[in-house]
Amino acid sequence: MKKIVLLRHGQSAWNLENRFTGWTDVDLTPQGAEEAKQAGSLLKQNGFVFEKAYTSVLKRAIKTLNEVLDVMDLDWIPVEKSWQLNEKHYGALQGLNKAETAAKYGNEQVHIWRRSYDVAPDALSATDKRNPRLDKRYDALSDAELPLTESLKDAVNRTLPYWENTILQSLKEHDQLLVAAHGNSLRGIIMKLQNISETDISEFNLPTAAPYVFEFDDKLSYIKSYFLGDPEAIKKQMEAVANQGKA
Amino acid sequence: MKKIVLLRHGQSAWNLENRFTGWTDVDLTPQGAEEAKQAGSLLKQNGFVFEKAYTSVLKRAIKTLNEVLDVMDLDWIPVEKSWQLNEKHYGALQGLNKAETAAKYGNEQVHIWRRSYDVAPDALSATDKRNPRLDKRYDALSDAELPLTESLKDAVNRTLPYWENTILQSLKEHDQLLVAAHGNSLRGIIMKLQNISETDISEFNLPTAAPYVFEFDDKLSYIKSYFLGDPEAIKKQMEAVANQGKA
Repeated sequence: MKKIVLLRHGQSAWNLENRFTGWTDVDLTPQGAEEAKQAGSLLKQNGFVFEKAYTSVLKRAIKTLNEVLDVMDLDWIPVEKSWQLNEKHYGALQGLNKAETAAKYGNEQVHIWRRSYDVAPDALSATDKRNPRLDKRYDALSDAELPLTESLKDAVNRTLPYWENTILQSLKEHDQLLVAAHGNSLRGIIMKLQNISETDISEFNLPTAAPYVFEFDDKLSYIKSYFLGDPEAIKKQMEAVANQGKA
Repeated sequence: MKKIVLLRHGQSAWNLENRFTGWTDVDLTPQGAEEAKQAGSLLKQNGFVFEKAYTSVLKRAIKTLNEVLDVMDLDWIPVEKSWQLNEKHYGALQGLNKAETAAKYGNEQVHIWRRSYDVAPDALSATDKRNPRLDKRYDALSDAELPLTESLKDAVNRTLPYWENTILQSLKEHDQLLVAAHGNSLRGIIMKLQNISETDISEFNLPTAAPYVFEFDDKLSYIKSYFLGDPEAIKKQMEAVANQGKA
């Protein structure tokens, strides 16, 4: 059986402060690094030996991956970093506190911004210093590829081609892959694999640093998925993520 | 001016214990990680912004690179890992204390094993559990490529093709590259660039985590090189490395 493990990064500084992060390159907290190490231990205990790993170009995912690989004694495997695995771009909301934003605009509006499939937050202006066009790491991308805001649908539209053409294809030559990324880029992949509807995906919340295993047959058809770790703890974490956007 | 910075990893556990390491996958010490961070600060202060990095498949070099990139806020750049940048394989000496080995075989013999150009230490037996054939990270390599011991000449013969065909070529599309590797794989590259003789290279000792800058013109011709940091401190470090193999 071939396996791909999806892993959302550990707690970041802005997870802790309950702020919309998106493409802001926020670091892990010490707790986030610890969560990543625990994920690595859990994967090692369960006998995983990854042959290649994929991550975004944002340090909270990259450093989560580095911690996991180091605990597993797999520092040496090839790692490919792609902007296509980045978190959903949160537009003008980036940097704002989620609960304060909910107090101002209402829980319902914030739920729409966080979880609706095709409504994007207000866009950054092109002159905003947060415009990714000004960030060297995106130099190779065209203006058309670079967002000033994204709905989940927009994020899915740039994440899924990478998933299908790069990650899934590399399962032809490998048996075990690891993808360390973000709540929303992973929700897009999970939505596709588990055939979750555009409505139902709004209620799916991914806990930080909980290894989510997806099994595939030799024809790369999806078979089944399961979290590693304590199911009760994972359920509580999922509820906590869901409640972040309430006033 | 195009630049490649060569960086030997920070202090490893076996540097500290003064043992021959070679291809043994020994971790950094806390001091080694600190040295890497300082190298990153120094590079950042000097305005370096690397576009791509290269390292070996050994964690002391990979983790040195990760620390440097994180301090420089460049976690996101692509990193290529190659066995061809590994340390010289030290054969049956791997794991032995350098000073104890010198007390047993004499300073002169240890100097030959450490620094002669074409004399390799005794080879591991094929059944030795340290045989790299048994290590998953080398699965893609043929038996002919995998050493049981190496002279500096042997190491140079697998490092230089990677330097010339991969690293130097990528300077065509990039202006600044970082190579985080090992004392002997880097000595081979430096020997070639600076046209150092097979005799003189034996007296060249590279300090840990001291950024060594090499400048090239647009035709990829080597122009000049210099260390970043305090010249007196670097000189002392080079002398200390030279003295490691004395009884």
